[in-house]
Amino acid sequence: MGLQLCFILPAAITFVTMEHGVTYIRNVWYMAAWEEEIEGDSLLARRLLDKPWVIFRKADGSYAMLGNLCPHRFAPLSQGRRKGDTIACPYHGLEYDAAGLCTRNPFSDLIPPHARVDAPPVVARHRGVWFWAGDADKADPALIPDFSAIEVEQPMVHGRTLFPAHYEIITDNLIDLSHTEFIHEDSFRMNGKFLAGQYSGDEDETGAIWSRWAFYDTPRPAWLYGVAADARMDEWLDMRWHAPASMLLEVGFTLAGRPREEAPVPAFVNPHILTPETAETTHYFYTRQPGEEAEAMTRQVFEMEDLPMLEAIQHALGASAEGAAFWDLKPVVLNIDAAAVRVRRRLMKLRREEAG
Amino acid sequence: MGLQLCFILPAAITFVTMEHGVTYIRNVWYMAAWEEEIEGDSLLARRLLDKPWVIFRKADGSYAMLGNLCPHRFAPLSQGRRKGDTIACPYHGLEYDAAGLCTRNPFSDLIPPHARVDAPPVVARHRGVWFWAGDADKADPALIPDFSAIEVEQPMVHGRTLFPAHYEIITDNLIDLSHTEFIHEDSFRMNGKFLAGQYSGDEDETGAIWSRWAFYDTPRPAWLYGVAADARMDEWLDMRWHAPASMLLEVGFTLAGRPREEAPVPAFVNPHILTPETAETTHYFYTRQPGEEAEAMTRQVFEMEDLPMLEAIQHALGASAEGAAFWDLKPVVLNIDAAAVRVRRRLMKLRREEAG
Amino acid sequence: MGLQLCFILPAAITFVTMEHGVTYIRNVWYMAAWEEEIEGDSLLARRLLDKPWVIFRKADGSYAMLGNLCPHRFAPLSQGRRKGDTIACPYHGLEYDAAGLCTRNPFSDLIPPHARVDAPPVVARHRGVWFWAGDADKADPALIPDFSAIEVEQPMVHGRTLFPAHYEIITDNLIDLSHTEFIHEDSFRMNGKFLAGQYSGDEDETGAIWSRWAFYDTPRPAWLYGVAADARMDEWLDMRWHAPASMLLEVGFTLAGRPREEAPVPAFVNPHILTPETAETTHYFYTRQPGEEAEAMTRQVFEMEDLPMLEAIQHALGASAEGAAFWDLKPVVLNIDAAAVRVRRRLMKLRREEAG
Repeated sequence: MGLQLCFILPAAITFVTMEHGVTYIRNVWYMAAWEEEIEGDSLLARRLLDKPWVIFRKADGSYAMLGNLCPHRFAPLSQGRRKGDTIACPYHGLEYDAAGLCTRNPFSDLIPPHARVDAPPVVARHRGVWFWAGDADKADPALIPDFSAIEVEQPMVHGRTLFPAHYEIITDNLIDLSHTEFIHEDSFRMNGKFLAGQYSGDEDETGAIWSRWAFYDTPRPAWLYGVAADARMDEWLDMRWHAPASMLLEVGFTLAGRPREEAPVPAFVNPHILTPETAETTHYFYTRQPGEEAEAMTRQVFEMEDLPMLEAIQHALGASAEGAAFWDLKPVVLNIDAAAVRVRRRLMKLRREEAG
Repeated sequence: MGLQLCFILPAAITFVTMEHGVTYIRNVWYMAAWEEEIEGDSLLARRLLDKPWVIFRKADGSYAMLGNLCPHRFAPLSQGRRKGDTIACPYHGLEYDAAGLCTRNPFSDLIPPHARVDAPPVVARHRGVWFWAGDADKADPALIPDFSAIEVEQPMVHGRTLFPAHYEIITDNLIDLSHTEFIHEDSFRMNGKFLAGQYSGDEDETGAIWSRWAFYDTPRPAWLYGVAADARMDEWLDMRWHAPASMLLEVGFTLAGRPREEAPVPAFVNPHILTPETAETTHYFYTRQPGEEAEAMTRQVFEMEDLPMLEAIQHALGASAEGAAFWDLKPVVLNIDAAAVRVRRRLMKLRREEAG
Repeated sequence: MGLQLCFILPAAITFVTMEHGVTYIRNVWYMAAWEEEIEGDSLLARRLLDKPWVIFRKADGSYAMLGNLCPHRFAPLSQGRRKGDTIACPYHGLEYDAAGLCTRNPFSDLIPPHARVDAPPVVARHRGVWFWAGDADKADPALIPDFSAIEVEQPMVHGRTLFPAHYEIITDNLIDLSHTEFIHEDSFRMNGKFLAGQYSGDEDETGAIWSRWAFYDTPRPAWLYGVAADARMDEWLDMRWHAPASMLLEVGFTLAGRPREEAPVPAFVNPHILTPETAETTHYFYTRQPGEEAEAMTRQVFEMEDLPMLEAIQHALGASAEGAAFWDLKPVVLNIDAAAVRVRRRLMKLRREEAG
């Protein structure tokens, strides 16, 4: 592989004493939940971007998301009661509609005219519920990244895990899959594929950033049907990123030397969508095959292998996980970090733009 | 009910980043413990107003309260040994009397002349042990709020629960009992009594603040003996507040339209006395009937219904639970908050006066 | 005993709001681990002076200690894999040698030239692994305090306990053994020996500080063989201190009135070596006899008696455990604190010198 860019971490840096703020990017779509997570008339309480929210499905099948603090005494509306498309506060019964406006005061016919809670734009798409965290008039649903590839015929489990790390630390992990060779050595047994692979990171005209690995002339994986047992294969792993941390992985195979259009089986696609819960914890949305085996594999890879590593890194970095603070640590940068570096730069740019 | 005063909580306020100090009101009596809590010669360790204290009963039956840190090596005296009305430090044996003065140095006949610990004025009254947190020369026992009504003949359990919330959040809860209609819907089954009731908040010439609910021409409660089964009743709930958070609830009944003097049964009285442990935790002193049923009811109402709600509000408000910081959040104010608003204003006034 | 120096703790001081920094002394040897703790090819992860480290034994039997964060993505090297005297990072496989230099990049023949981790001077001595936390060119092994007395023939257990307190709080405890009379009353049954003993604190020409207790003309301890049952004994307890907190206790006996040279049995020696883990937690290295009885005694004395007391003091002092902040509390000082005061002053002097 090509030229390495290398920087050094100063020897005696004390991470814990460095303090930097966390700044959430606002004018962007975040996934709040999978549709599957919101059962019937239930009220789903979830912390997102360090604020409490309640999410529910309306009678017409669309979704609403409200700030989860009643502005009277700051009680959590999610512990209240659904009445049609409104929620009655569990503390003193003030009722709020799906637009966040107070529609009933049980102690008076007079409705407090200024009582309301936040109600950001919400759109259901690709099995997920997305919300816009910034100016409502900029909330164009066409800006939701295209995850139509995951809306497949076969039944899939739409899973979520809470990771104890800043979303940029998790993005570093996902955007460069070469770590599979090491952390997931026992699970995936790559046997050096990545060490012999070709890597590139780039971005396209739509603003997506791509991290691409290609393995040429490798043996056919045992589980790949429809190809001769002794066939030689080319393989590609393309991870596509959209701000702030919505990723789609495509894994495909062709007979060695053949173009992608001639792939004997459709490419496999997996969403890896991250939404910050707090500065140090992140909702990780994924899909997997149903069944105990796939569940066990997911638990092994996510919770036993990735999670402890990312938690350790979060502990080491603290508030230096984000933005300029990360670069202040002068991390060593390798060629395989090309996409990761582009992502971190893009996020810094977006934060600067929103700061004006 | 009358005109609503309504304010609004700004949409995107981030509670967790707001930082305000907590200021304890000093020149006031606080309950430190029920007398029942101090068994025999025991040393009761308790954090009050964010400082550690040790409380014990002297040979003459009166009580002493000492700062719980030996000024030599800062060991907790409560882990030491009683010797008459003195405590020997568990670490190096320095002994302190009930006035906080060092009376023995086991390593020398010379007593460290300046060694002493705090010993605020303490008075036992109405089954409780009260202490004065301010200037000792202002500690007039006549200023202890009158809880003689709770010194009843029948045996009562004197209970204490630690609530994970600032005492003003708990006061908001107690001073306005309309929340009973919602949080305690399953326990108390008020069935809309409060929604049809009359409310007023006022203060009397002694400085007490009153929150009063009245329900007119209602059915006789099933448990109210001595009244015809089909009688119509008037009912009153009066919560009396003294600074900083010592409350007494009186619940009474008359035949509909008759004056209180003609009440067929004596009014029921219950203390609700709050003393801050820290900025975010509070000792809640109460009484209840003996027996498993009353214990289960108390646990249900306090620990299962009120506590989670108040904990959630504390989590949302953080340091904005107190003083001006609370009003900075521009909470919606309803008519039923008349007494709560008076209490919060009084506390701000007292803090300002003590700050000079 | 002689004149008492007495100061007073101001009555209403609020410890928790006082904030002072913790400053680690750098140009000094610290014990990182007992050799026994590093088994075979294992990688020992340990936080020391509030930084993460990994310690291992090299093929030649000597030891290496490396900063435990790979400078690429800050993964803990201790979760990686040994390859001879190098460690491969568990995340992306970068390899580091015992000098902290990157020796292999699995994705390229090009080694990141500036990639390295800290590798302080390390020396194995007196069964322990010691490291120098300051300028490497000042790391003279001759400055390691002499603990050769503990390298005895008989098999000893080399133990370590993590204490939840700043090392100065623990030093206060160890440097003045008179607390044995109180905290360890049930375990050691001193029965007033210290109250009748003679105490002095001094320092020698090598810079060591000594805390000395002497008990004259006392009964022979039942367990002391080789002396007549009715013999009268003199006893000495000498605790020797070297910066920052490496202590050696010597306990000896002579027939009453005889010089130390005529001691009928060799003196007993015990190391009490403290190395800060963080500002509020400390590694405590000790030795004890093998066997269940000695283990139970150690657990009783350390974990049941000393530890809760020191934890309570840490909780009370917070960041005031160290340096000038401690004296700002105006602690009462007794004659028995002579060595403790010298130690605290020495540490302040060393910190001032290193600050320049």
